[in-house]
Amino acid sequence: MGRGSQRVVPSLQWPRPSARQLPVNRVELGDFTPDLAVYLGQAAYLQLALSESLGRAAGSAPSVHAKAVTGRVAGAALDRHRGLIAEIERTGNPATESMEPHVAAIDEFRRRTAGATWYESMLAHYVCAGLLDDVFVRLAAGLPTDNRDRIVRVLEAGDDAATVAEVLSSSIESDPRLASRLALWGRRLVGDTLLVARAAISASHESADDERLEPVFTELIAAHTRRMDALGLTA
Amino acid sequence: MGRGSQRVVPSLQWPRPSARQLPVNRVELGDFTPDLAVYLGQAAYLQLALSESLGRAAGSAPSVHAKAVTGRVAGAALDRHRGLIAEIERTGNPATESMEPHVAAIDEFRRRTAGATWYESMLAHYVCAGLLDDVFVRLAAGLPTDNRDRIVRVLEAGDDAATVAEVLSSSIESDPRLASRLALWGRRLVGDTLLVARAAISASHESADDERLEPVFTELIAAHTRRMDALGLTA
Repeated sequence: MGRGSQRVVPSLQWPRPSARQLPVNRVELGDFTPDLAVYLGQAAYLQLALSESLGRAAGSAPSVHAKAVTGRVAGAALDRHRGLIAEIERTGNPATESMEPHVAAIDEFRRRTAGATWYESMLAHYVCAGLLDDVFVRLAAGLPTDNRDRIVRVLEAGDDAATVAEVLSSSIESDPRLASRLALWGRRLVGDTLLVARAAISASHESADDERLEPVFTELIAAHTRRMDALGLTA
Repeated sequence: MGRGSQRVVPSLQWPRPSARQLPVNRVELGDFTPDLAVYLGQAAYLQLALSESLGRAAGSAPSVHAKAVTGRVAGAALDRHRGLIAEIERTGNPATESMEPHVAAIDEFRRRTAGATWYESMLAHYVCAGLLDDVFVRLAAGLPTDNRDRIVRVLEAGDDAATVAEVLSSSIESDPRLASRLALWGRRLVGDTLLVARAAISASHESADDERLEPVFTELIAAHTRRMDALGLTA
């Protein structure tokens, strides 16, 4: 256990509770929500990019089981992508144009977080998707009610995080060298991911001053620490 | 048009009719249906392998629109994979063990049909999935009724074939060199795909003599020709 001071926030549990209720005392980011079109374009392209990384990772899966898990997780990312695209189409905007402005930054993020092995790629998905889905759920607080409800449902659907945690933690248990490599890799990942989170928050018109955002980042990092703990890794 | 003699079989239309009724006079392969476990393991791993190829292809997509199409099509393959896995789990068998025996042959098929460009990979998916989904729907005729109905629904869901045809044919229209390259590639693909179709049919206990199978292969090739025609390519 340890790191007790970061565990007092009861709102962010991992794996997510099956009832999928929005935690009541999660620090929301409604003041920093960008325009619906910006929000959706960014979120939709992010899920597409996550699925693309998983598609590449499938090629180096160490077993059929690992490959099937990768497929299941990629399918969940693509479900979110499709759900967000449906939401874009509901607004009447062309999906491609909504995603275009976010391609360069997210592609660069994807390159930096691709991972050299299947294990690294799966950890990357677990860490990056875990943190960024959380950010987008919080940012959704400032969206029109009906959009928000549908979007949060899309983002919180699927049990892929628990699936990844299960397959990674059993691999880590049986190989201590993997544990130390992945702990290092996790530290690198969280830095890159927080930069993307920061960019998503700064896409609003509201100036995103650090003081107001500090409690949010504290929660995001605490949730990340719990995710790494669930794998038996030090964050 | 042309190739009129291969067009008399009214049962196989492409793109599939939206009502998704099973064509009444399609030559079925019920006599050659393998055991349910063999059928499902093979079909499930095939969809996983198809999605993996698409995941790789996404990396060389020439535009955001192309990448989004790739994601949509990969999502449809993963939907089928997950539907078939659910069906395996319903039988009480472990999904991984059911897929294992089919990995080597399907991975080799995937390598041979990977394609050097995004266009080649998308054509590969269109040709291979089009033909093999058709084979598996026909083979399903010999499965127990309730399994069969669910499996056929899984295999026939999605509008991804029409989506691929649309994006490829508009690319081909605007680049004649692409047309000749892809026509050649299509010929190579259909050979490899028919070998996999043959192996799927030969997995039954029934001896798959060529005379009984000839009308089926005639229909499969006619459907392939129509698929290539829909892209403006000579089969």
